[in-house]
Amino acid sequence: MPASHFSPVTPEIIDQLKAIAGAEAVSAAQADRDLHARDQSQHAPHLPEVVVWPSTAQQVADILRLANDCRLPVTPWGVGSGLEGNAIPVCGGILVSFERMNQIVAVHADDFQVTVQPGIGHKDLNAQLARYGLFFPPDPGANATVGGMLANNAAGIRTVKYGASKDNVLKMQVALADGRLITVGSRSVKQASGYDLLHLFVGSEGTLGLITEATLKLVPVPQYMSAALAAFESVEAAVETVVAVRGSGLDPAALELIDAAHARMLREAEGVDLTDHPTLFMEFHAAHEDSLQMGLDMVREICHELGAIRFRATTDPVERKKLWHARHSSYEIMVRSHPDKHFFINDVAVPISAYPQLIGYVQQLKREHGITAYMVGHAGDGNVHVEFPYADEAEYQQRLEINGLIVKKALELGGTATGEHGVGIGKAKYMAAEHGPALDVMRAIKQALDPNGILNPGKLFPEAVG
Amino acid sequence: MPASHFSPVTPEIIDQLKAIAGAEAVSAAQADRDLHARDQSQHAPHLPEVVVWPSTAQQVADILRLANDCRLPVTPWGVGSGLEGNAIPVCGGILVSFERMNQIVAVHADDFQVTVQPGIGHKDLNAQLARYGLFFPPDPGANATVGGMLANNAAGIRTVKYGASKDNVLKMQVALADGRLITVGSRSVKQASGYDLLHLFVGSEGTLGLITEATLKLVPVPQYMSAALAAFESVEAAVETVVAVRGSGLDPAALELIDAAHARMLREAEGVDLTDHPTLFMEFHAAHEDSLQMGLDMVREICHELGAIRFRATTDPVERKKLWHARHSSYEIMVRSHPDKHFFINDVAVPISAYPQLIGYVQQLKREHGITAYMVGHAGDGNVHVEFPYADEAEYQQRLEINGLIVKKALELGGTATGEHGVGIGKAKYMAAEHGPALDVMRAIKQALDPNGILNPGKLFPEAVG
Repeated sequence: MPASHFSPVTPEIIDQLKAIAGAEAVSAAQADRDLHARDQSQHAPHLPEVVVWPSTAQQVADILRLANDCRLPVTPWGVGSGLEGNAIPVCGGILVSFERMNQIVAVHADDFQVTVQPGIGHKDLNAQLARYGLFFPPDPGANATVGGMLANNAAGIRTVKYGASKDNVLKMQVALADGRLITVGSRSVKQASGYDLLHLFVGSEGTLGLITEATLKLVPVPQYMSAALAAFESVEAAVETVVAVRGSGLDPAALELIDAAHARMLREAEGVDLTDHPTLFMEFHAAHEDSLQMGLDMVREICHELGAIRFRATTDPVERKKLWHARHSSYEIMVRSHPDKHFFINDVAVPISAYPQLIGYVQQLKREHGITAYMVGHAGDGNVHVEFPYADEAEYQQRLEINGLIVKKALELGGTATGEHGVGIGKAKYMAAEHGPALDVMRAIKQALDPNGILNPGKLFPEAVG
Repeated sequence: MPASHFSPVTPEIIDQLKAIAGAEAVSAAQADRDLHARDQSQHAPHLPEVVVWPSTAQQVADILRLANDCRLPVTPWGVGSGLEGNAIPVCGGILVSFERMNQIVAVHADDFQVTVQPGIGHKDLNAQLARYGLFFPPDPGANATVGGMLANNAAGIRTVKYGASKDNVLKMQVALADGRLITVGSRSVKQASGYDLLHLFVGSEGTLGLITEATLKLVPVPQYMSAALAAFESVEAAVETVVAVRGSGLDPAALELIDAAHARMLREAEGVDLTDHPTLFMEFHAAHEDSLQMGLDMVREICHELGAIRFRATTDPVERKKLWHARHSSYEIMVRSHPDKHFFINDVAVPISAYPQLIGYVQQLKREHGITAYMVGHAGDGNVHVEFPYADEAEYQQRLEINGLIVKKALELGGTATGEHGVGIGKAKYMAAEHGPALDVMRAIKQALDPNGILNPGKLFPEAVG
């Protein structure tokens, strides 16, 4: 969708936005525009013409009605932690920041639910929920907002047990392009009443509507947690172990893999206690201490049977954090150890049985192209991130090409172009290959709900990105 | 949607259907029409004009293209076990039976997935999957087809642990109204690639497309299972126990409630060993025998703390089946003990905290109207079925009115008009009250995907049912 399709944000528009949201909630100052021009990805920044900080759902709806009437692009913004350019206002226009809509609306403790405004960070939410012994499990790492997580169906390391964002939401209020406010889903955990609009809006990356409120599923904070680390000679052995652990009925809460290159980098950079082998990080949650220990015994047995060359496990909270330190800090350690590089993070997912093939292919590409890259995988979900350091535009373009090869391989293996980062800008070019004629159905729905194309233009559809 | 909107099925149409599916796969014989005129609900039967048994997805798509070109209604049919008239061909036309598309296409054991044709019964599927140690957990009771379960988002007693049908599907092939065949979702368990069309088609009751293939999530058959039964003085105490068990982190695999009237009926009719009290039936699954026993100890403690007047538990498979017999056979026992009655089953769900209010309201209505009704609840999900025996049209109309009052109460309490039976015919009139302006979004999607309204007309939308 070319920017020329849209009208510019004029002083009159800014006055109307101020009438809707209040004068102090609208800014066209360069500093504010600069702060909302880029996310955490490598995608080129783009300035919005104006930033608005609404404080109510009705204000969001009124902003959209104005934008729709005047053909102005609108891009929603949580905290800018996206990894695929999802919130970069590539067509300029109005950037709607949810920063001021960051409150808990209601805690429904007996229902294991909480209703929140979209701008609350999931870590801030969980800090406030601790007193109830409940938490919202999806954890993408950064303190992403709940609205951003839902819009992009963010996932993270605990998805193997607790599901992605889409699995942990029951009801949302959504502002449509024409300014209608609708409610989708229900606080009833069972729902068989009409079309599942809830999940249509989740993961639609702000292109069908803006989430203005959400009721989330919570789970009890686990009473007991354990951790285990196991190193293997080969990725194949490690992944065979992943399948065996999942098949055992043990229900791991996290099941992560780093490749040998990543383990070596962590050890060389900061002396992390790892050997140069593919390494699994595991976490287990239990309601009873004894069942935790029995679970670890089963895991140890499985790992040894499948050829683990090293196995460490603990139920002690302090030891557990130490054991997981290398995984939790892997990105920061990598960045620190390459001070002169930028990073570009790939995100594909395949059925678990195809995981060894995918990882083998990544290793082959690294060898063939003679490049450095690190592999971090949510192995329990078949999801992998290849982290590419690069120094300049030429290196970036080469990594992009390699990324494209990895995506194509993932699709060949029955997987997806994006497991948890979303389509945004970078994956739009693969949508036709992944979805075939179903992409036309997505287009028909976009046309039905946003006929003027004002919502987060320049994303998701190949023709929008160009 | 009035039937007059549609064209009749002429001999020429029947010839064209025979050209698509084969002569032996098309019948306008009265006996075949009769067999596809009613489901398990109380809704009035209606004859299709012709029955077609396609054997491939392409045949389904070709039938739809023909029907769309000629403005013929098409109603999909699994096995007729629906409970809200979902598959009754109320506008006549073509009935598409999936009886011949009942094969397993591929077992992906390492991925805990199976790809099936839509006409396979879930019990038949699980029988074939037993050799892999895997099963498809949603269980609505009857041997419903997988296609029907997905189309209606069927659930059942194990949903509290394993989720409903929508939570156990990854990918589907769908034939659209205009004859396009599309694929939605992915065999990757993590997906963040574009709009979630998968869940849009799940639960759409055949009004947006016909499911021609599905890849399902499977789970390992539990190594160890236990059962517990607990009776309480009041429904409030029973439901408080439900909340406590769920909050304990014990993760029950089933958590069912029958009311005192139902317990009495089961005892009086067949001498089932129950007292006249609200009674909870619980089931737990574990990977380790010892953790099962520890879990039961916790459950016993919780039940006693919350005032259980009777508690029985077992880890023995034979005893477990005996303990659950009353719950599993409750419907059949009820029907046998009222040989002169028809039955009408209500299905609403609310947030669990509102469950005592809902149940209290049902009890109040029973008293006020002086009627017999039995309550069976998937209490762990906040879902309840009120089973109304009735003898004649006047009694039926009165029960329908009471049903309406229960639905309104469920909506007031933040719940839904249907937890697992779907909208079909009987719940269409409540869609506006439940969804408000979101119903217009559903209409817009229906219009975008089925502009001629040929797919399962007379269902889901209030204006379609009239």
